Amino acid sequence: MSAILVTLPDGSQRELDEGATGADLAADIGPGLAKAVLIAEVNGEPKDLGAPLPDGAQVRFLTKRDPEVLEHLRHSTAHVLAQAVLDLWPGATFAGGPPIEDGFYYDFELPGGGTFSEDDLVRIEKRMNQIIKSNQRFERYELPLDDAMAEMADHPYKQAFMSAASAGDDSDGDAAAGEAISFYRNGDGFIDMCRGPHVPSTGKLGWFKLMRVAGAYFRGSEANPMLQRIYGTAWTSKDDLGAHLERLEQAAARDHRRLGAELDLFSFPDEIGSGLAVFHPKGGIVRMLMEDYSRKRHAEAGYEFVNSPHITKENLFQTSGHLDWFADGMFPPMQLDLDGDGNATNYYLKPMNCPFHILIFRSRMRSYRELPLRMFEFGTVYRYEKSGVLHGLTRVRGLTMDDAHIFTTKENMAAELASLLDFVLSLLRDYGLDDFYLELSTRPEEKAVGTDEEWDEATEALREVAEGQGLDLVMDPGGGAFYGPKISVQARDAIGRTWQMSTIQVDFQLPQRFELEYVGSDGERHRPIMIHRALFGSVERFFGVLVEHYAGAFPTWLAPVQVAILPVADSHDDYAHALAARLKAAGYRSEVVEANDTLGKRIRNAKGQKLPYVLVVGDDDIAHDTVGVNPRGGSVERDVGVAEFIGRLSAEVESKGVPEAPGVAHQVIDDASSTAASPPDPL
Amino acid sequence: MSAILVTLPDGSQRELDEGATGADLAADIGPGLAKAVLIAEVNGEPKDLGAPLPDGAQVRFLTKRDPEVLEHLRHSTAHVLAQAVLDLWPGATFAGGPPIEDGFYYDFELPGGGTFSEDDLVRIEKRMNQIIKSNQRFERYELPLDDAMAEMADHPYKQAFMSAASAGDDSDGDAAAGEAISFYRNGDGFIDMCRGPHVPSTGKLGWFKLMRVAGAYFRGSEANPMLQRIYGTAWTSKDDLGAHLERLEQAAARDHRRLGAELDLFSFPDEIGSGLAVFHPKGGIVRMLMEDYSRKRHAEAGYEFVNSPHITKENLFQTSGHLDWFADGMFPPMQLDLDGDGNATNYYLKPMNCPFHILIFRSRMRSYRELPLRMFEFGTVYRYEKSGVLHGLTRVRGLTMDDAHIFTTKENMAAELASLLDFVLSLLRDYGLDDFYLELSTRPEEKAVGTDEEWDEATEALREVAEGQGLDLVMDPGGGAFYGPKISVQARDAIGRTWQMSTIQVDFQLPQRFELEYVGSDGERHRPIMIHRALFGSVERFFGVLVEHYAGAFPTWLAPVQVAILPVADSHDDYAHALAARLKAAGYRSEVVEANDTLGKRIRNAKGQKLPYVLVVGDDDIAHDTVGVNPRGGSVERDVGVAEFIGRLSAEVESKGVPEAPGVAHQVIDDASSTAASPPDPL
Repeated sequence: MSAILVTLPDGSQRELDEGATGADLAADIGPGLAKAVLIAEVNGEPKDLGAPLPDGAQVRFLTKRDPEVLEHLRHSTAHVLAQAVLDLWPGATFAGGPPIEDGFYYDFELPGGGTFSEDDLVRIEKRMNQIIKSNQRFERYELPLDDAMAEMADHPYKQAFMSAASAGDDSDGDAAAGEAISFYRNGDGFIDMCRGPHVPSTGKLGWFKLMRVAGAYFRGSEANPMLQRIYGTAWTSKDDLGAHLERLEQAAARDHRRLGAELDLFSFPDEIGSGLAVFHPKGGIVRMLMEDYSRKRHAEAGYEFVNSPHITKENLFQTSGHLDWFADGMFPPMQLDLDGDGNATNYYLKPMNCPFHILIFRSRMRSYRELPLRMFEFGTVYRYEKSGVLHGLTRVRGLTMDDAHIFTTKENMAAELASLLDFVLSLLRDYGLDDFYLELSTRPEEKAVGTDEEWDEATEALREVAEGQGLDLVMDPGGGAFYGPKISVQARDAIGRTWQMSTIQVDFQLPQRFELEYVGSDGERHRPIMIHRALFGSVERFFGVLVEHYAGAFPTWLAPVQVAILPVADSHDDYAHALAARLKAAGYRSEVVEANDTLGKRIRNAKGQKLPYVLVVGDDDIAHDTVGVNPRGGSVERDVGVAEFIGRLSAEVESKGVPEAPGVAHQVIDDASSTAASPPDPL
Repeated sequence: MSAILVTLPDGSQRELDEGATGADLAADIGPGLAKAVLIAEVNGEPKDLGAPLPDGAQVRFLTKRDPEVLEHLRHSTAHVLAQAVLDLWPGATFAGGPPIEDGFYYDFELPGGGTFSEDDLVRIEKRMNQIIKSNQRFERYELPLDDAMAEMADHPYKQAFMSAASAGDDSDGDAAAGEAISFYRNGDGFIDMCRGPHVPSTGKLGWFKLMRVAGAYFRGSEANPMLQRIYGTAWTSKDDLGAHLERLEQAAARDHRRLGAELDLFSFPDEIGSGLAVFHPKGGIVRMLMEDYSRKRHAEAGYEFVNSPHITKENLFQTSGHLDWFADGMFPPMQLDLDGDGNATNYYLKPMNCPFHILIFRSRMRSYRELPLRMFEFGTVYRYEKSGVLHGLTRVRGLTMDDAHIFTTKENMAAELASLLDFVLSLLRDYGLDDFYLELSTRPEEKAVGTDEEWDEATEALREVAEGQGLDLVMDPGGGAFYGPKISVQARDAIGRTWQMSTIQVDFQLPQRFELEYVGSDGERHRPIMIHRALFGSVERFFGVLVEHYAGAFPTWLAPVQVAILPVADSHDDYAHALAARLKAAGYRSEVVEANDTLGKRIRNAKGQKLPYVLVVGDDDIAHDTVGVNPRGGSVERDVGVAEFIGRLSAEVESKGVPEAPGVAHQVIDDASSTAASPPDPL
């Protein structure tokens, strides 16, 4: 028997018998490793521990400490899920079951088109745990296509994957053209067609949970049958699973769709159509405050304010290229004979504001003295999103972009990009977002206009500016818009989730398409460069993100109602209303909750609304012009002078901070609910 | 010969021979009257002087001092116009030629489809003056229909009027069913079919001018041929004609479409479509200031801010009744399968915001404690206006309403309407509009929903509120919306023209259609009343009216650029830019015009832009921290301390007033152009 030589990560080498597997090597190194190892990385590729090692291989063992194993652990758990379902529902069949972020799913078709109930998930989990406990080995084998088709005779969706793969379509990743088809078998003959690799046996699994069931078209196409998809999550330890479930719980508590209803901020009335939000008074005031503050900052930063309509003749979007490159994202046209000349024209709802701002630029000859010309508009656009991708306010069909287009000379582009990124980050920080990284999206492989040279130049300018910020910079190859590369600012929220916020795009293309020009200091005509920039992204999306970031507890400057005033008894009503009037005159938003309920219940209700301050007023307060202050997340303080309270409020609103806990703690009321609601630290 | 008795306005009576005409009576009274009289008013009806007077008639003579004669004078001038055209273009034919406000028009078809040139108008005026000079008598005669048709054998449009009239359609007013057809003849056999009356002879005419030519479909229908319409104006004296032409010149100088281009405020790019405006930076800042101030006042007045999308499923406008009553004013629908369920739904661009605000009201149960609930939105709506009626910003297809809907109890309706009208008038006064009357529009004859009783109640409530203002109240019978009566505020601008501004409508209907309810203090459910209210009407229209009212010279608080800073020479540039930065820090909008042109030319340019202040800075100013102040419409003042100037600016902006002339006049620069631009008095 000849020998092979393998190299370990520390550079040491071992000689093994030919045919030795990863498991053999691990056992050779030591029993601890042999027990802990889940996947062998052979020459950089993940492999089953049971696979023979080639001579000269570089081998690295992955245990549960290596994040790379999660993908395989989740995939193996998906197999166990399928095994359990096929076991519990005789006659059921299955399609694809890949690992995904944080977990896995598997698609099934139950006999007679049945669906899974919540109770079914419990039964399935129980069966899965039995399979895990019996520690069944995952065994790989391969078959040529014909035999493989026969092996999956009862499973037409698997056969469909094989047919597609043999025809060269590997989009599902389960089988590739021409290769033998690989299968994994475990337990009492459960077989799944699969590329692998897998953990060595089901006993290595266990920290999983089935999350939910959803309908899913086979291969994502509405033309195919609807299957039942079970989603699950899986981790390498009990702690990790627990932490994940807690994150989910936190996220659910912050879900802006839930809070939007609970706090009466916005809704999506059925009568209007999905993806189209209305903002109720309490959401409307927050939105207005956001917009007001944005306008103020933009005015200070030298932006000019423009306005454009929501519809246009199709020509405009033909010239811009949107109808070539972005038509899928646009609402279909209205055919109108608006000029009454018998010639109908297609009118489109605008999906973007850029061509309108370009027309304003082009309305007269421009001089280099006017550049950079920064046009800003809260422009509402409409995008033809599929129902499946809609999600509360963060993915809608009607959205108001805080949209700016900057026309600059080529010479000034880098300086403008640098000050722009400063401006963007500064404004995001005012909303309590301060944990960022940047993403640089480059030329898409398809659907891109312009020369390589132009793309390279624009991309380099963005890279320099991004690197100048000293923030992490992540590449997003091919993620640019059709007209140019972009930087996007990714912000981490209060529970560590990342949201794409502002985008900055450089565009050499639209100025060419619209033949934009300015007269330079040399008296000659030059082509300006455009920068597209949205800071919130959209008001709707930013609003949704903020609701989740704050968990509904808006900082005082943004809170729809800043102060609830609770008279202890009817006799204190007049004082309470007079106080509300004083607050209003000073520019603050308060609301009197009269004594038609117990004080405790009224305090709980106000806290439930996550108001920054609850003021309680009684006889002593009337006598001394004071209030009892019950701040969100802080301690109650009695006998605070009204003028002093207004002074505190003013300082806090001015600084865009959150309520400060007073110096001396008196009594904590309802601390549990208010702690959960406390917003991030002030800046 | 028997006699008739007629009574004069002073009560005196005269006996005349039977068959005596108005002219006979006037001659009987005296030669001065006989010469001056133009029309006889017989039993309250205007008649030809040549018509026999009936026995017992009340007769009043109209001379050029009576404004009622203008209509007839203009109609007679229209005949002379037709006579001149048919004379100059053999083979031409004619259609209708009525008097209109300030003048008249006549529609013609020239042989071979020719059109009139500017030079043609001069030729025609010359021929008309010859006809007037020859003092031809207007003679009336009547014919039965058949003979009348023969009389107009060469004039098919006149025949078409007769056919329509004999079929009972008197919409053109030229002939009524069953009556004999009347004609007027003058000069060498010019004949026109006409009801009359006319002035006695062409010699009574003369103070007229032909204004312009426009295409006009016969009877206003696109199905009919396009005719050539000549518009003219006519008056009873040279002074009146001159005054009218001067008013037109003033209005043209204030025309917001012209000023919009000259001052770079807005445009209507062809690429977008007619009736759809874009606001350029200088118009955009004015618009934003208008909106900001409006939001501030609305917040103070207890309004809540909401937001709604621009499109909706058709069901919403079916429920509201808009698709029954307002479909003509709506853009045609887009057929969309937005829910991806294979069922296409019609989506409409919204023509009004009310149903959206109603959905917000209805999003949860409301209590009487929440009423009046006042929802405000700058809501952009789209209206399917015909091309012919579009007019700059004052009649557009895309308009942003400063729209509010107030939900109130019936008991509180009158009080709410009263404070609302106060609010509306107060805000209009802040824009320098202070000469108002009110119009009360009542139930339309067709297209109205609701019972008579409801209409009466709502109309009475509005009448009481309107009368409470002590302003003139004019009735507009049948002018209400389909869902309720309205008050509209009519404002006179700086040159005395009237514009319809704010509207306040009471609506019992939509709350019924949407089954709106609130829980009253009695614990029972009640139906609220809605008040629809737009104050600007639309931002676009109000903007257009303001441009005309101010003649483009915006008061300082609204001016796009408040201050131009002109360094005398390059060496003063730094000081000028530092001054601009100080003004910006203090919240003012300035612009430095560097010394690349003579000072005089730069001052003229800045004045041409109608800026409130031009500051000139030179060596002395640098030495003493001063500026030379050249205010719009005032006198130049030198050596004004910068701090003092900023103080003045601040006081003026705060008061929403216009620049004050300084106490001591030094030197007037370019007074001619600035006087023309001076805005109305501050309030």
